[in-house]
Amino acid sequence: MEAPIMSSDLADDLRRVLDGPRRQIRDDCRALDPSLVGPPPQPLPMDEHRARVTDQLLRLADEPFPGWGFAEDQGGSGRFADSVTAFEMLGHGDLSLFVKAGVQWGLFGGAVALLGTERHHHLLPRIISGELLGCFAMTETGHGSDVQGLLTTATYDRDTDEIVVHTPSAEARKDYIGNAARDGRLAAVFAQLVVDGTSQGVHCVLVPIRSEDGAALRGVTITDCGPKLGLAGVDNGRLVFDHVRVPRANLLGRYGDIGADGTYASPIEKPTKRFFTMLGTLVRGRISVSGGAGAAARSALVIATRYGDTRTQFAPPDSDDETVLLDYRTHQRRLLPRIADAYALALTQNEVVTAMDDILAGRTTDEQDVRQLETRAAGLKALTTRHATDTIQECREACGGAGYLWANRLALLKADTDIFTTFEGDNTVLLQLVAKSLLGEYADTFGDLDTAGIVRFGARVAAGAVLERTAVRGLVQRIIDAAPGREEDATFADRGVQLRLICDREAHLIEGLAARLRRADEPDVDTFESFNNTQDHLVATAVAHVERIVVEAFAEAVEDAEEGPARDLLSRVCDLHALSVIERHKAWYLEHDRLSPARTKALTAYVNEICAELRPHAVTLVDAFGVPEALLTTEMLDGS
Amino acid sequence: MEAPIMSSDLADDLRRVLDGPRRQIRDDCRALDPSLVGPPPQPLPMDEHRARVTDQLLRLADEPFPGWGFAEDQGGSGRFADSVTAFEMLGHGDLSLFVKAGVQWGLFGGAVALLGTERHHHLLPRIISGELLGCFAMTETGHGSDVQGLLTTATYDRDTDEIVVHTPSAEARKDYIGNAARDGRLAAVFAQLVVDGTSQGVHCVLVPIRSEDGAALRGVTITDCGPKLGLAGVDNGRLVFDHVRVPRANLLGRYGDIGADGTYASPIEKPTKRFFTMLGTLVRGRISVSGGAGAAARSALVIATRYGDTRTQFAPPDSDDETVLLDYRTHQRRLLPRIADAYALALTQNEVVTAMDDILAGRTTDEQDVRQLETRAAGLKALTTRHATDTIQECREACGGAGYLWANRLALLKADTDIFTTFEGDNTVLLQLVAKSLLGEYADTFGDLDTAGIVRFGARVAAGAVLERTAVRGLVQRIIDAAPGREEDATFADRGVQLRLICDREAHLIEGLAARLRRADEPDVDTFESFNNTQDHLVATAVAHVERIVVEAFAEAVEDAEEGPARDLLSRVCDLHALSVIERHKAWYLEHDRLSPARTKALTAYVNEICAELRPHAVTLVDAFGVPEALLTTEMLDGS
Repeated sequence: MEAPIMSSDLADDLRRVLDGPRRQIRDDCRALDPSLVGPPPQPLPMDEHRARVTDQLLRLADEPFPGWGFAEDQGGSGRFADSVTAFEMLGHGDLSLFVKAGVQWGLFGGAVALLGTERHHHLLPRIISGELLGCFAMTETGHGSDVQGLLTTATYDRDTDEIVVHTPSAEARKDYIGNAARDGRLAAVFAQLVVDGTSQGVHCVLVPIRSEDGAALRGVTITDCGPKLGLAGVDNGRLVFDHVRVPRANLLGRYGDIGADGTYASPIEKPTKRFFTMLGTLVRGRISVSGGAGAAARSALVIATRYGDTRTQFAPPDSDDETVLLDYRTHQRRLLPRIADAYALALTQNEVVTAMDDILAGRTTDEQDVRQLETRAAGLKALTTRHATDTIQECREACGGAGYLWANRLALLKADTDIFTTFEGDNTVLLQLVAKSLLGEYADTFGDLDTAGIVRFGARVAAGAVLERTAVRGLVQRIIDAAPGREEDATFADRGVQLRLICDREAHLIEGLAARLRRADEPDVDTFESFNNTQDHLVATAVAHVERIVVEAFAEAVEDAEEGPARDLLSRVCDLHALSVIERHKAWYLEHDRLSPARTKALTAYVNEICAELRPHAVTLVDAFGVPEALLTTEMLDGS
Repeated sequence: MEAPIMSSDLADDLRRVLDGPRRQIRDDCRALDPSLVGPPPQPLPMDEHRARVTDQLLRLADEPFPGWGFAEDQGGSGRFADSVTAFEMLGHGDLSLFVKAGVQWGLFGGAVALLGTERHHHLLPRIISGELLGCFAMTETGHGSDVQGLLTTATYDRDTDEIVVHTPSAEARKDYIGNAARDGRLAAVFAQLVVDGTSQGVHCVLVPIRSEDGAALRGVTITDCGPKLGLAGVDNGRLVFDHVRVPRANLLGRYGDIGADGTYASPIEKPTKRFFTMLGTLVRGRISVSGGAGAAARSALVIATRYGDTRTQFAPPDSDDETVLLDYRTHQRRLLPRIADAYALALTQNEVVTAMDDILAGRTTDEQDVRQLETRAAGLKALTTRHATDTIQECREACGGAGYLWANRLALLKADTDIFTTFEGDNTVLLQLVAKSLLGEYADTFGDLDTAGIVRFGARVAAGAVLERTAVRGLVQRIIDAAPGREEDATFADRGVQLRLICDREAHLIEGLAARLRRADEPDVDTFESFNNTQDHLVATAVAHVERIVVEAFAEAVEDAEEGPARDLLSRVCDLHALSVIERHKAWYLEHDRLSPARTKALTAYVNEICAELRPHAVTLVDAFGVPEALLTTEMLDGS
């Protein structure tokens, strides 16, 4: 493949593919005033940064997109995919603003919209406009990933027709709550709902926490989480409730409500299913985090790739011309596979956002589709945030000292996105949820990771049913079927061979997991120990599953692209992505006799070859990300 | 292995081994006032943090150890190992202070002491006391790793008997220079020395940069690098020289001087050898960085392990008792192998510091030993800083949201140590130096990584000579010889089997590299391409070499330990370290038919088993690091 003659055209064609169906939204966001969304030009003291972000948030409220995320009958415009896409684009700006906006409109507004009923929806216009700022008070000091274990109580008092919200212990303190330390007036508080002495499980209650003048309301103790590694502009805080009384109507009662007669009723009988249905409505949060993490990683890749394309170091002997960093294989290896991964994840993100839109807009109501979206959102969040953390780190190192300077953006990207692996679900926990969902019994127990429970139900799963649930899409199956079956004819350049290897690993891991869990269900086996012995297998299975979904999305995007140089280049990037995934798991392919030693050695050589082939296109490939130039501080970009 | 009855005794015995020969120094440092060495209780604005660190530095100057690093006839006390050990202990405090002290006493003072002559040594008492603060001005904007390519010139002017220091281009600007933006008065400037029109290569010249009142001196332009990802308390700056004149005597002339008659003379004829001899004297810097990185990683492991030992999440079914994080296998896998690595690296660090002491104190003058120390310092710096960056990241994630809070120390440890992979030699470059040194011709060309040069000399190396140079120590050879030779008798629990596998990988990689380079030396081969095609092999070889050195040091420490429960535990930690290394390279062992698939699967199972076995000792193992409690902020350590 030769260096492109008109790389800007090529970049534009690639960008068309990456931007996907919501290109206009992205372009509108690219055109936003950088001061509206960008990070402060200098690090600010925490208080000033918070004030700046609040100000940006309120200015952002004047833009149309905060309303897109809400249904038309709730004061919004029901453009859910557009909303999440615009939010993703904020990920190129100050991540503090990204998170603050996510808390206000996504989490807090989302809880009111999706868990509340008509009696709460009148609040939404003020939430959209930023007039009413709020908190999403789920996590407690003692319970983060395990939401079912929350300790805060919301007890119905029939005598006064009120709900009493209370923090019974230090562990039950609401912690790390965004918007709590400074701005939030109203909190959506997740608590164990107790009616007539019976616990109905976790529900969400609206609790005013601060008066108009900013003082904490009676019974509410607000403290500041203080400075953090990053996200200095987000006012994370802690909330403690001392028997705080709110009207019964403050219960967000869509999935479980207390009637005027003081009795509890829910449209979903089984408490676990009720709980996971409630949580499921919040799937948008995970999709959004994944979007922002992907955007931040792309920003970092643009910075590091441009730097590596101009920065020289060491001259070959007999030459005074120093070698450009990206001409070194070690440097190509650091950046190019990550660029390819960034393409794959961005394309998958587009698909997931479209699927989410179908569900939120009511075009799809199939339970199976809803569950699949939840699984994919969880898995993609885990993979994309891992990718972002690792990639931004690699980019920092690849820019040496220049990468360490605040002016060059990588420092802030790194510090700010670090917590993305943890929030909206710790990645290790999420991956276990994904694996569990693959094993079935999803609808009732999704997320119910009470350790050994998984062993029990896993044991009842037939491997065939699992494989049906994880069937690849038709297009991919056709590509695989077209690949040569005999190993000696199968070259790594063949997309079908790539896909078959990746699908094969997923299928083998799932089958093995199911078999293992069946064995673990013998009467005298210690269930916790069995679960624990299976935990790494569970995580590996989930990763393999999501990797397959991602490579499928990439392969399909290549198939769908218009023929031409951009598609050829895209296809090579897809090769690099797919083969990097296989190379990363080389030990597994060897251990399971899927690839011979000679073949894995050839694989490594071939990945090197693709890196060298793509190297002249490196800058084109990152230009295609379409990151607004004003958001990439350029001090070092001359590469001197 | 049962849980220890008296874990504090056990921790103390382990600490004795880890502290090594300089336990008293470590205990003295542990007893220092935390306010003298600790980070600020809150993040400070950059200017305040810098002022705080300068103040700490000056208070530290009242302690005895800054003088330990200088010879007795230079106003010091010649306790080199003690000095580096004390410096390592600073790595548990504010890393900004660690770096600032390293710049002042290690780099700046070290350059004056080791590159200067008697006419410069009168400065050392004022450098030791902190009265004269200075800079080590080596790196330029355009040249970091490639020090030989520096562009700053130091031209001797015979007419005035002065040296003219000049920055000829933007690229030649001195960059990232610690102590430059605020405090430094005198800079040790590395520049191309030109005498009578002839370049003599890079030398170091003392250039006053700032007057007593803090203003930049005439011809010197000082700018501030501004805020960084971490190390906010270090005043990194940039220096530009406009024909700045200094007396001829300011040349640090130990390895090349200009006589009263204006002619240049050097005790080392060959310029390249001269250059690398000069650089070699600065080996202490790399050893110190490795020490500080190791200390920071140990601090992080203490915080995360204690948290994981108390924090609960999710209860097994049929139980209200939630499971402690460290009881989960995924969590054990995250922390225990890293604890084992931390042991291994700390024990190797002790050995390298002792070897350095022998050389700096003149007890060893053997050229081979000097070269070996340089190689090990470079390799250990690369591995320990990589370990620190990855471990602190893992610890942050393992502590979830709590790990993100500034109060819990991990955030600062992470941000501050990030640049350690880059400074004092970029790790990727250092590893190539290590590989090159293994191939020989070390003395003349160490560090001379002018891309394809390595192909040329590599081709002339006989594999036998290389293997001799990398011979394992006698004790290790005896352990290996005692291991069963037949694969079916060889269990992973056998230290000899572990060591044999690790040594075998190193030897195979070196032999392969030499063979590859010989092939690359054919007449019509493009040397840059050959070099580039070999680069990843080069890096893998270096890693394998250093990993072998590290596991050897650990194995020897186990052999040397007094018999008893602490030694038994230590030996298990050594197993975990060695087997984790092998597991990490599982694909290599499979590809090269050193382990069968059945054996690598058994290896993974066995590593899991050791993790579970060590889990009850996890807190004991990190307590043995002896990190001063006052330097571990404890807000979250109750694990609630």
